[in-house]
Amino acid sequence: MIRGAVVQEDSSILDRRQVVSEVRDPQTFVRQLVDMVDSLASGFGGRDRVSSVGIGWPGLVNQRLHRLEVTPNMLDLSSVDLYQELAREIPLPIVFENDANAGAYGEWRAGAAIGLKDVLYVALGTGIGCGLILGGQLQRGSLGFGGEFGHFKIASDGLECGCGSTGCLETMVSGPNIVRRVREHLFSDPSFSVSQLARDMEGTLTCERIKEAARENDDLAQAVLRETGVFVGMAIASVINLLNVEMVVMGGGVMTAGEVLLEPIREETRARTISPSFNCCQIVAGQLGQDAGIIGAAMLARDRTL
Amino acid sequence: MIRGAVVQEDSSILDRRQVVSEVRDPQTFVRQLVDMVDSLASGFGGRDRVSSVGIGWPGLVNQRLHRLEVTPNMLDLSSVDLYQELAREIPLPIVFENDANAGAYGEWRAGAAIGLKDVLYVALGTGIGCGLILGGQLQRGSLGFGGEFGHFKIASDGLECGCGSTGCLETMVSGPNIVRRVREHLFSDPSFSVSQLARDMEGTLTCERIKEAARENDDLAQAVLRETGVFVGMAIASVINLLNVEMVVMGGGVMTAGEVLLEPIREETRARTISPSFNCCQIVAGQLGQDAGIIGAAMLARDRTL
Repeated sequence: MIRGAVVQEDSSILDRRQVVSEVRDPQTFVRQLVDMVDSLASGFGGRDRVSSVGIGWPGLVNQRLHRLEVTPNMLDLSSVDLYQELAREIPLPIVFENDANAGAYGEWRAGAAIGLKDVLYVALGTGIGCGLILGGQLQRGSLGFGGEFGHFKIASDGLECGCGSTGCLETMVSGPNIVRRVREHLFSDPSFSVSQLARDMEGTLTCERIKEAARENDDLAQAVLRETGVFVGMAIASVINLLNVEMVVMGGGVMTAGEVLLEPIREETRARTISPSFNCCQIVAGQLGQDAGIIGAAMLARDRTL
Repeated sequence: MIRGAVVQEDSSILDRRQVVSEVRDPQTFVRQLVDMVDSLASGFGGRDRVSSVGIGWPGLVNQRLHRLEVTPNMLDLSSVDLYQELAREIPLPIVFENDANAGAYGEWRAGAAIGLKDVLYVALGTGIGCGLILGGQLQRGSLGFGGEFGHFKIASDGLECGCGSTGCLETMVSGPNIVRRVREHLFSDPSFSVSQLARDMEGTLTCERIKEAARENDDLAQAVLRETGVFVGMAIASVINLLNVEMVVMGGGVMTAGEVLLEPIREETRARTISPSFNCCQIVAGQLGQDAGIIGAAMLARDRTL
């Protein structure tokens, strides 16, 4: 899905569109992006009234070369110089950013973390992303590849991950892996046959369905989400010990589960963090929800072209 | 041990002293520090020729309050305002810093990482410390407590750690825990009875002794150091995935073991890192050795009082 919006200087969203993204042909995909910008701009009075374009990508963005290096959940874009193609079609300043970095920037400029200097933003969704504000600056690392929090090791053995390592956080807490863990519990523990999720087991069991069941006090759904929080808390504890951030902002689709996830995250983090660092750190849900990345990409484009 | 040196503007060491530190009485300890500064200064022509004093502490340094919060391997200093006491006795600018942050700063300003922007420095010794240069700045976190790399989780269960958590890196790879693991191997595996370390088992088995045996090709010593490298590599991989640093500098007393430790660190890190981030990161031994902290503390004092 390509989601776009007209974001004003003050971070408010004026208009938004979305379109199912082309998955076979890079040129068609580029055309979709250009059409998205044009249709948003024309509803707003034309390109002249737009000052810049910010795009958040689900993958590694090489900030030196303006190039997407790895885009695990998208079509293969390695054959096109996406930045140049877009620059040719859209004569406006264009900023590329990793989507979780954009989310972090959004929550920092316009959401839960306004005014702070050291912030960890974590996005739990189909994949796991994160962005870091440290010393009052977005920190992307040397080429822009930072924030691969999903490949944090939480177990010395653990499951194999697509990245080639084992025991990565993502193998336990991404949306698809939450679904997998619910299925495993349903298979292995007969006491969960009373769960409302048992009905979905043969069909399409989704993370949305699991969150809904948890809200309706389903034991299995709540147990799996709590366990998810424990895994996330383990990794966050390591980051707090390493970076002494003032705030951890939790975002992404999975986090709409709310307190059933946030509470074990806080609890596990507290148990595994040195206390002076835990005591000066808040762990909160994001304020921008699913718009954090869109607003953040726009704010980045605004701030770089000021 | 209190180690002090006269460090010149260009980071070279002119003179050095050390003294066994007082462990019972804070006032005597303060006196030792003042005497150290005076004796170094007098050999150099007096206090007038010294521009500032930098001190690296083994513990958490609260940078807002100039206060030591936790000093696990030292006498309890909570009853004295150390910074004020020293400031009264030494009328020069004084800079407090965590010792691993000082080491990172030293290697960055005058050692292996000169000119880079994103660097992880790890000190393996009696404890595990680390310091981070990100975006061309020393990053200490909001209050200065960052760098607690020893409390990175490398196992979901694992041994209990002094910090209250379990599975911390420190429980496997600190000097005392390397000794513990050698003892455990000697107890549990009869094939290691041929190790030269078997002789030391009843007496004082030290990390120095283990490094020496490894240099002499002792199988047990080499196996335990290699295993140490694997644990360290797991944690470093998570940091590289998170921060996309250009260089990891390995320092601290344990690292004098050399390649037997560095090679498995590199190997394990490679296996557990997303490749674009691994490919742009060097993993090297520090160039300043045990002087990294002293030189770094002096450079910090120099740069803050410029």
